[in-house]
Formats: sequence, structure tokens, C-alpha cells
Amino acid sequence: MTPEQFRSAGHQLIDWIADYRARIAARPVMAQTAPGEIKSSLPAEPPEQGEAFDTILADLNRLIVPGLSHWQHPSFFGYFPSNGLLASVLGDFASTGLGVLGLSWQASPALTEVEEVVTDWMRRMLGLSEAWSGVIQDTASTSTLIALLCARERSTNYGLSRGGLQADPAPLRVYASAHSHSSVEKAALLAGFGRENVRIVEHDGAFAMRVDALDQAIHLDVAAGSKPCAVVATTGSTTSTGLDPVDDIAQIAARHGVWLHVDAAMAGSAMILPECRWMWKGIEGADSLVLNPHKWLGAAFDCSLYYVRDPEHLVRVMSTNPSYLRSAADAEVKNLRDWGLALGRRFRALKLWFLIREQGVEGLRARLRRDRTNAGWLRDAVQAERHWRVLAPVPLQTVCVRHEPPGLAGERLDQHTLGWADRINRSGAAYLTPAILDGRWMVRVSIGSEATEREHVEALWRTMREVAESNLS
Amino acid sequence: MTPEQFRSAGHQLIDWIADYRARIAARPVMAQTAPGEIKSSLPAEPPEQGEAFDTILADLNRLIVPGLSHWQHPSFFGYFPSNGLLASVLGDFASTGLGVLGLSWQASPALTEVEEVVTDWMRRMLGLSEAWSGVIQDTASTSTLIALLCARERSTNYGLSRGGLQADPAPLRVYASAHSHSSVEKAALLAGFGRENVRIVEHDGAFAMRVDALDQAIHLDVAAGSKPCAVVATTGSTTSTGLDPVDDIAQIAARHGVWLHVDAAMAGSAMILPECRWMWKGIEGADSLVLNPHKWLGAAFDCSLYYVRDPEHLVRVMSTNPSYLRSAADAEVKNLRDWGLALGRRFRALKLWFLIREQGVEGLRARLRRDRTNAGWLRDAVQAERHWRVLAPVPLQTVCVRHEPPGLAGERLDQHTLGWADRINRSGAAYLTPAILDGRWMVRVSIGSEATEREHVEALWRTMREVAESNLS
Repeated sequence: MTPEQFRSAGHQLIDWIADYRARIAARPVMAQTAPGEIKSSLPAEPPEQGEAFDTILADLNRLIVPGLSHWQHPSFFGYFPSNGLLASVLGDFASTGLGVLGLSWQASPALTEVEEVVTDWMRRMLGLSEAWSGVIQDTASTSTLIALLCARERSTNYGLSRGGLQADPAPLRVYASAHSHSSVEKAALLAGFGRENVRIVEHDGAFAMRVDALDQAIHLDVAAGSKPCAVVATTGSTTSTGLDPVDDIAQIAARHGVWLHVDAAMAGSAMILPECRWMWKGIEGADSLVLNPHKWLGAAFDCSLYYVRDPEHLVRVMSTNPSYLRSAADAEVKNLRDWGLALGRRFRALKLWFLIREQGVEGLRARLRRDRTNAGWLRDAVQAERHWRVLAPVPLQTVCVRHEPPGLAGERLDQHTLGWADRINRSGAAYLTPAILDGRWMVRVSIGSEATEREHVEALWRTMREVAESNLS
Repeated sequence: MTPEQFRSAGHQLIDWIADYRARIAARPVMAQTAPGEIKSSLPAEPPEQGEAFDTILADLNRLIVPGLSHWQHPSFFGYFPSNGLLASVLGDFASTGLGVLGLSWQASPALTEVEEVVTDWMRRMLGLSEAWSGVIQDTASTSTLIALLCARERSTNYGLSRGGLQADPAPLRVYASAHSHSSVEKAALLAGFGRENVRIVEHDGAFAMRVDALDQAIHLDVAAGSKPCAVVATTGSTTSTGLDPVDDIAQIAARHGVWLHVDAAMAGSAMILPECRWMWKGIEGADSLVLNPHKWLGAAFDCSLYYVRDPEHLVRVMSTNPSYLRSAADAEVKNLRDWGLALGRRFRALKLWFLIREQGVEGLRARLRRDRTNAGWLRDAVQAERHWRVLAPVPLQTVCVRHEPPGLAGERLDQHTLGWADRINRSGAAYLTPAILDGRWMVRVSIGSEATEREHVEALWRTMREVAESNLS
């Protein structure tokens, strides 16, 4: 495809995307597709001869799009929002179109320096001190794995990077609440801690880690000859946006020399609102921190920010320096390959740079405030209705609800809950993801898609009542 | 930004990218930028109010682009090619514009199923048997880390995922040649093997791993009570595209129950050419395999393919199943989050699907053959010239050369080599990355940018002679 062919095909594709976004509300939110259906509609063999762009675009329309669940839909209330605001989308287009890589500063200096600038913009927007340095990773799973790797190495005095798994005879322990994200246990396993060394610390009625239980667990482990290595505190848990008390946890971590990683993948974006910063009070006491602008904030996926107070830990664990990557500038610049797992790096900073510039901090703040207000409205509406319950505090944009008709409990209540959520999802009217809270299924309403206005939340609430109440008969 | 604003700004950006690509040859290849220059040209504070798209695009032009090294330039001969063919760029645009995520099959079924289809297309194109299953990762660094994690768990009977670092008292050993990529040692370190447990196996005069040395190293380790865990064979090493003998290595690996991972990040793309498949003869004996279509093949970065023969190892090590990710379809589908580190996944398959369809297998093959022919031409030209040497075999598209004028040796020769390469890079005429081979600096000419035709290789060779020969005076 020549640049001139790209110009023509690109204009077609831009129109196609604009139309997709403009008309998205008319589509069923969740894909109405059976397993294997899309696969069997596509040829098993790749084409020998090239095909026209029109054919490819037509197949995208006809075969692929009906097999998608539409995350940018105004009635998408599943998982967490993954907003790709259109300004950010254009920033990512610029990155892909330029096709440059950041193997080193020298390999494309602007790629590194814009990343430094934009992660520093975000630091200021979040109210973090100058002690933090940021870098863009793909996802919070990766950021948390990196944090645990740094913790592992610090607590063994970099022994594992030399002598390996058996260098330290004391089991290394990681602490998190049962409401921490699944990526925390996965990271602990991949980093070699082992599931048995992940201590699940009890939580309170608001699904926040109990600091007395953390303190006790650490004391018991020390007494038993284990080595407390890292604690992961969550700001905005996945199930209920629960808030671990970062301040108290930081004090305990400091006392025991334990690495504190704060997983604010979801709630971190909200810290651009000064009125939300109490939620991670004490954050300056953490060693590392992850938040995902590719969630609520609106950066096109993938864009996860990892901040550390002491980048030396990163560089000591992650750095490589083969001859083909050296340059005369190395002493004066950051080589961000030493700040993460991958060597090759996209120009991800552009999508965040475009987003912040086009929206302005005010624009971003206004949208997040809109969503918090909508969540408060839904919480109040559910609480005011007989046989409906709100099951957890609503600090942000997620409302955990259950319809509890008289006489239904236990597994029959679970069936009812999963039943009405599934009926809504299959109807295409909205997308909801149920989850287990305190041992019973409930429905998470995660508000915050860019397109979601009050009318969509009101319509959802009407649908929920209709479907849940009629599900009984 | 509304869809209508996006339509207008998007058309502008498409034209901008088309112009960038059409006129790229007029730019200096390597950025002519001092450290910190771009950073200091950007405001330290994010804007409070949103800005017009025109302003952002103008700044991209004025402040960012001059700070880039241009990887899509016809005279880019650095590192390895990272072609983002324009059809693939459009596939990535479609993915970003749709803004869907694959946390699970249910979260967007087509995302998973197109990935299954397109990785299977690639499997057929590469001549691999049906025993292989593929998945898209970001980079070969990640793929190799995953391979070593699977090897670690298999060799300890999944003990580390339970009891952690100290579960197995025998040191686990990883084997690779000194010409393996820096990501291999990094992965071994991150996976907890420790640098001291990475055995560097000797190589022969063609920079290929010596199988007798591998066999001996494994025997010695077994005798000393260590546990041989994984061997990484490289098909197309970074410095010289050296080729480890996969067939012989596979036999040794099988005999000792050692995991064989083949790093074909670069050369894997060439396996769509039947005449190249001797280079990884024996590949069916490997356990895992990585190749990067985002290099020579032309998929927009990032797109690394990881193939395994037994996906159960992946799933046992990587899987998570929190309540909020479960769906009724889970028993019938692949959930690709269990095949990698990250939970969130972009619709990366689209960029490969667009690429293969628009080019056809024939189109891709023709371009790779062109580049091999151009590399052969340069090799012959250099060999025919007095005082110039080709230092390694040229199986693919990388030519390792040195200008060796009479009387220059040792460090003075190194200075001369680095000197002329640096002069060319600073001139903007071409981009070359020197590297160390057998203890001395040489210059890698990595041919294979989509835009690179014979005339550009001929021009480079003229420039090399002029600059290197005049560098002496």
C-alpha cells in the first residue's frame, strides 16, 4: 500500500470509525455470538494474493463487528470503563503512523522525552510530590509484576539476580487483601514467591484491608523465620472499589522494611480530583504505584502508569546493555527499556499527550465528576427501592447492587442474580458484570463510559427493575 | 472530541501521515537532537483548558518529529527493521478506534477468535505443524520470559507456583550462547534463575551454538547436582543473524528433559520462504517459539507471536479466574489472558489480519526475497573491495562489515569503526548500529525497511566508502 493508497483508504477508515462511534448506541452492547462462530466464518488459509482494502473493510463490518462487545457504548457498565477518547485515539494513530521505536533514547529521543514530560504532567495532576518518577507500561498486571520483582530483589539485597531462586533460605512473603486484583496473586506466582507465600489479610465491612490483621500477620511471619517482602494496597478494588488504608499500611511497611506497592489501577485516575485524594491518603509513603489512564481517564488502551520513588531499583533489576544498544548519549539520558520488561517500546506517550491537551485538566475533571454524580444518583435510587440493596460504599463510580426479593436466599438468590444480569446482557440493552461479594453473587454497575449520561443510567435502572422483578414469575 | 470533530481531525491526520511517509526520504534518518532538548521545549505543566487539534498537530510537526529517528526511512539500516506497513497501520487504527478489550472471550469474542485464526494462518505460512498453538504478545522479551516461566514450573513440577523460590533445592540452569539476545539473560533474572545460573555455551566461527559444548555443560551440571531447566536457541541472532543448530539442540534437550525455547524474533518472518526453512531445521522438537511480525514482516509494532506445543503449561502457570471474569462460555472457548502476563488485551490480531490480506502471502514473500538479494549484493560488493571485510555469514538481511585499513588494529581500529559509523549517523544520510563481534566493534548493515530498494543500498555503500576512507585523514 503506497502513501497515496493509504490516504484514500485511511479517509474511508476514519469515516468508518466516526460512524461506528456516532451510531454505537444502536448496537446490542454485548456480542450475540456463539463460541466458534466467527472463527468458522473466516477462511482457514491465508490468501496467496493481496486483496483490495474495500474487501477487508467490508469483512470487518460484516464478520467482525457483530462479534464484539462494545466497550465505548453508553450502556456499557461491565468490568471497568476502558475509555478510548477520540483525541487519544488520534494520538495513538500518530504513534502507529510514525512507526518509531524506543529501544534507547538515541533510537528516537522524542519518544523518551515526551514520555518523561507527560508522566510528569500526570504526576502533577494527581497531586504527587516530585519524589516520584513515572514510566508507561502496558497494563497494571505488568506494573504490579515489576513492583514485586523490585521488592524481591531489594529484600534479598539483589541476591536472586545473582544466585537465583535458592539464594535466600527464608520464604519471602507478600501481603494483600482478598479484594486485591487477580493480577497480584499472578504476579507473586510469576515472580517466584509461590501461592503459599501470599498472605491474604482480612478486610473490614467496607472491603478495606484491616491494618491490625496486617500487622499481626507480619509479626507472626517474622517470628516463624519468614521474610516479609511486599504489601500490595489497593485503591479502588475491582469488585467494589474498596479502599485500603494506605497511610496506616505505609507506616507498618516502613516499620518492617517491606516494599509498599499501591494498586490504584482504577481509582488513580480520580486523584486528578482534589476531593478524592483522601482515598489514598499516605501515598507518599509507598515505594511504587500503578494507575491506568486507559481506564476511566480516557487514554486509548494500553497505557498503564508506573511510578516509583527510587528508580534505581528498577534499573538494577531490569537493565541490559548489549553493544548494539549503546550510544554516546547514554550517560545523559533515560533509557526506558531499563524501566520495564520489554526492550521495544511504542510511542505510547502521544496518546496521553493528545488526550490531556485536547481535554485540558478541566475537561477530564468535569467528566469524572459527572460520573461520580451519576453513581451517587443510582446508589440513592437503589437504596430507596424496596427489596433492592446497595452492598458496598460508592466512593467512585461503581455501584454494587442486589435485588433481594422476600423468601429468596442462598443459592436461589445467586441464581436469581445471575439470571437477571444474564437476561439484560443477552437482550443487548446493557452490559453488566456480576461478581462475588462476601460469598454471594451481586451485580456491579460500573459507570464511566465517556458516552454514558444520566439518561443511560436512568434507563439501566428501569431495565434492572423490570427484568429482575419479572425474572421471578 | 465528538465523532464529527474526529472525522475532520482524522482526515487531517491521515493526510499528515501519508505526507510523512511519502516524503520521509528527505529527512535525516537519525534524530539530530541533544539530550533534554525536546523536554525543555515542552511546558512543564499540563494545560488547564482544552486546546484545538490544529495546535496539537502543529506541535507534533514542529517539536516532536525533528526529535525522531525515522525507522520507516529507506536509509534506516539500524537495529532490525521494524516495518509498519500501511495496511497493518490501518488494521491497528481499526483496533484503536473500536476500543474493545479481550479480558475474556466473552468481553469481545471476535478479538479472541480472529487472533486464533490469524496465528493459525501464520503457523501455516511458516510451515509449522498443527501441533503448535499461537498467541500474540507485545515483544519477544515478554515471550521469552513466559517461556522461561513455563520451563521453571515444568521442571519443578509446578512447585514454585505453590511453595515459591525455595521449593526446589537444586539450582535451575538455563543455557544460551553469548549471541543470544539480551532479553534471554534478563528473562532468566526476572524469572528468578539468577545470572549465575545462566550458562553461556560456546559458539563456533559462524556464531552458532556448539552442540558438543551444550551437551558437556548439561552433563557437568547434572553431575554437580544442578537441574538443567531450559535452553534457548537463537534463529537469527541480533549481532550477526547467527543460526543455532536447532535440530541437534532439540535432541539434547529431549534427552535431558530440558525445555527448548527458540528465539526466532528476527528470522522467524523469513520462514514464510520455503528456501529459508533449513535455518530452523528441527523446530518441531522445540517446546516454544517466538517470532516478531513487527520486525521484518511488516506488522505495526507491537506484535510478537508466541507458539507452544502444549498450552497447558501456559494455562497452569498464567491462569486467573476471579468471579468478575467468569462467563457461561468459559468451558468452550480460549481465554487468552491465561496465555500471557497481562489481563487486558488490545485487538492486536487486526493489524496482522489486515497485513496478510492486503499483501497476500506472495506479496510478503516477494519483499523478503528482495531484501535478501540486496543483502547478498552488498556482501559481494564489500568482499570485492580492498581493506573491507564481511565478518559473518549473511543468511538473511544483515551484513556485518568492517573497514580495515592497513596498519590499524585493536583499539585504534575500534575508534575508526565507531568514528565513521557515527559520522554517517550524524550526517543524516543513513542510520547504522555498530556492535561488538569477537571482541571488536564492527558495523551491522540491517537491510529490510519496506522503503529500502537497491538504490538505497548502493548509496549506502558509496557513503560508507567515502566516509570511512576519508575518516583516516
